Parts: sequence; structure tokens; C-alpha cells
Amino acid sequence: MASNNYPKTAVNSLKRLPNRGAYDYATVHSIVNTCPVLHVSFNDPQHPFPVVLPMLGCTADFENQDADPDSSAQDIYIHGYVSGRIFKSGKEGGESGEGLPITVAASHMDGLVLSLTPFHNSCNYRSAVAYGYATLVTSESERMYAMTKITDNMLPQRWDKSRVPPTKAELQSTSILKVRVASASAKVRVGGPSEDRADLKDKDLVQNVWTGVVPCWLQYGEPIPGKENGREDVEEYIEKWRLSENSKGKMGAYEAIEKGK
Amino acid sequence: MASNNYPKTAVNSLKRLPNRGAYDYATVHSIVNTCPVLHVSFNDPQHPFPVVLPMLGCTADFENQDADPDSSAQDIYIHGYVSGRIFKSGKEGGESGEGLPITVAASHMDGLVLSLTPFHNSCNYRSAVAYGYATLVTSESERMYAMTKITDNMLPQRWDKSRVPPTKAELQSTSILKVRVASASAKVRVGGPSEDRADLKDKDLVQNVWTGVVPCWLQYGEPIPGKENGREDVEEYIEKWRLSENSKGKMGAYEAIEKGK
Repeated sequence: MASNNYPKTAVNSLKRLPNRGAYDYATVHSIVNTCPVLHVSFNDPQHPFPVVLPMLGCTADFENQDADPDSSAQDIYIHGYVSGRIFKSGKEGGESGEGLPITVAASHMDGLVLSLTPFHNSCNYRSAVAYGYATLVTSESERMYAMTKITDNMLPQRWDKSRVPPTKAELQSTSILKVRVASASAKVRVGGPSEDRADLKDKDLVQNVWTGVVPCWLQYGEPIPGKENGREDVEEYIEKWRLSENSKGKMGAYEAIEKGK
Repeated sequence: MASNNYPKTAVNSLKRLPNRGAYDYATVHSIVNTCPVLHVSFNDPQHPFPVVLPMLGCTADFENQDADPDSSAQDIYIHGYVSGRIFKSGKEGGESGEGLPITVAASHMDGLVLSLTPFHNSCNYRSAVAYGYATLVTSESERMYAMTKITDNMLPQRWDKSRVPPTKAELQSTSILKVRVASASAKVRVGGPSEDRADLKDKDLVQNVWTGVVPCWLQYGEPIPGKENGREDVEEYIEKWRLSENSKGKMGAYEAIEKGK
């Protein structure tokens, strides 16, 4: 039977709190695809600091477009500009010749966990990190595929419901990176606070300090029309998506607290 | 007159859309300090991918604790575990001998910007990136200072309102990194959608496709007591903070739309 996990390697194995770790496709992909902004990191040979860019993207599989992301590895497509210089150095100087070594991180904050003492404070969160090799996508059909996926990952149906296809000029000035994922892992913290035993014996402390979780999620507010908007009402698929995101976000944050109990 | 900006260097100068850039202390520090999770990136000499860790932290200045963060450079203190191995290699192999070269990124999503065509879709966001050299804080007083700052940056007053000081064992098992910031920059996108002129002439398109911004912010919900909580009501300073965060988040997301108009 095929494994539904990214391979555990020296790179992605979690050394710290490994019981919070997950390597399965479903967990990793869902964290990446529901994250509004990905943090993409790579090296610039011109200075010692890794570059970190906030970018938009999602997982997909161009070669096998009907593949179920819960049961197969995926690539990550990223939309945005990265200096060509970096790619050149990646191709010439990289160890693998496969592209630029890149790390993609996605994190969701699900709640602030408050205990009797700051040392035991924590956060409920879901984070995923994928390591892979990035190349600039040059094939027009693959670029179109990736743009469709990235647009609809942010707001389902938006691609078809707005003006497509892109013009030639638009296509030319859009950069799409494809990250071939070599390994990936996720880390998830759920539940309420843990306490020090000595603190729990201190009745005065326990009676005076509230402990628990303040859940949090990304909330989408009433849409504001742009100055050139010509449509009176917000389309139903947008409002449906917005309310569903809010309710999923809220439910997820509260469920995360329950899961640990 | 002293500058209130981080120096523009080859490392932090924004090449892409430089009109969205800012280098002033107030903007950079406020983005970092209001971000619920920082993405910290550095190199592990054992593999080609930068490490990216979601961590908690904030800006502070131990040597000059009363300094106004809006008008002076600050260090970034980060709470969490980073393998000692990395630090060793930083000290021995680093170019500077000043610590481990590290990049700290903080991003806020303020809204989804929808235009007539996917190419012009965008996001309102605030992001900051700081480049610096990280060392493990060893002085007990500085560690205590940093823990207080990080705790109160998440939830003001929590340090004093819960059981402090930490025990010796707690102190020993808490790692604090200090990043001496060498350069930093921020990038902020505000406003509504921009459109292609040809699209605006297409009356059918303009009448059918809603364009504008769906604002978003981190929303904190009703707190849920932990199973060992012994206090009936949630303390007022927590509820005040929670409601204030929600209203600041919401207001900020709506104001970002107006700013661009």
C-alpha cells in the first residue's frame, strides 16, 4: 500500500516535541492551502541572511491534475516575483542542478493558551514547512494552470467569474515558481494549558488567575466596493465563501481546544 | 537630527514596488510587535534549505529600556528552542563572528483585493523583514527582561498578573535568542483594486463582476476556561485586551482600504 506521507528525512524530522508532528499529505497540504500568506525562504549568495518573502501560493499537480491532494505528494506553485539572478545562481551553483533550494512555511494561529505562569503559556497553532527545489515555470499551459489554481485557492470560482484568459502582456509579466517538494512536515498544537503541580496547590493563585484559551481566527468583514466597481450587490459565491471561511475559522479554533481534552 | 530609519543597504533595499517600502523604526517595530507569529529563518550547514521556524518574539532594548521604539533601533528577542549545534556553527563558521545570520519576517493580511481580472487581484498587507545576528541570551537579568517583554507583548499585564518569577528549572529550560538587527524594511499595500483600462470599457464585465476589497483581521473569540481553571470570570484586563485587539484589527483592515483612495 502506498504511504500517504512525505518521507521523514534528516531535513524534516521534528526533533523538538515530535508528538506534535505530522507528515501526511492531507495535513501538510491543508495547512498550506488555507494559509493566506506563505513565507518563502532561500539563499542569496550575495549576503549571509536567508531571504524571506511573503507570497501567495498553493499545492497542485500539473502532471496529474485529478490527483487527490490527501493521498499524493504535490508541488507548490507560488505567485510572485523573485529576482532572476537568484535562479541563475541556483542553477549554476546549486548542489543538485534541480533548481533553487527553497523552504516554504505556512502558519495558522488558533489560540492563545494562558496558564498560571508565563513559562507554561503557549499557543494553539498549525504550521507546515516544505523543503524543495524551485524553478521558474516557462510552459504557458502550466503557468495558466498554476494561476487558475492560485486564484481559486484564495477565492473559489473567482477565475471563471472574472475576465479570463489573461492577455499576452499579463501572462508575460506574471512569474510563477514551482517548488518540487523533497520533504515536508507539519506541527500542530491543540488543547488547553498545562500547569505546574506546585502552582495548582496554591489555592490563592488558582482562584485569582484565569487560565484557558483565547481562540482566534482570520475574520473576513463586509466587502467594500472599489471606486470603479459597477455591480450593485456582492456576488453570492463571494458572500458564501466569506461566511463559510469565518465559520470554519471560528469552529476550527474552538475545536482545537476540545481536541486536547 | 538623528534618523528614525534603519539604514538602506544592499540587503534590505526593496527592488520590487519600492513605493510600498518603509524603513522607519515605528513602522517596522509595530508590524513585528503586533504579529502573532514571527517566521525566523537561518541556515543549517547540513542541508541546502534554509530552516524556517514559527516563533514568538518582540522588539526591545535591554541596554536602554526606556527608549522609545518609534525613534530608536531595537533588538528582537525570540522565545523558543533552536538547536545549539546551529549556534556553534554560527560562531565558528560565521563570517562575522557576531552570531548566527538570521532573518525575521512578520506579515499581516489586511484584505483580499478583487479586480475585474485575476492579474490585478492583490492583497492589502503589512510585512516587515529584519536581518541580524542572533545569539543565545545567557545573562539571567536579560533573559528575565526578554521573557517579560515577550509575555506582555502577547497579552499586556499577563506577566505581573500571573505567577512570577519563574522557578530556576523554568528559567533554565527557556531559550531566548537576541537578534541584533543589522537592517530592516517594511512593505505595506493599501487601497482598492487597480484595473486594466480595456476592462473598464467592457460594460458587461463591469456590471457583472464585483470589484473591491474583502477586509480581514485576526479575531479573538470568547475565552474558554482550561480544565484546571479556578477563577469564575475572565479577568477584566484580558477581556479589555481582547475586545481592543478585535476592534483595532477590524478598524485597521477598513482603514487600509480608505488610505489608498
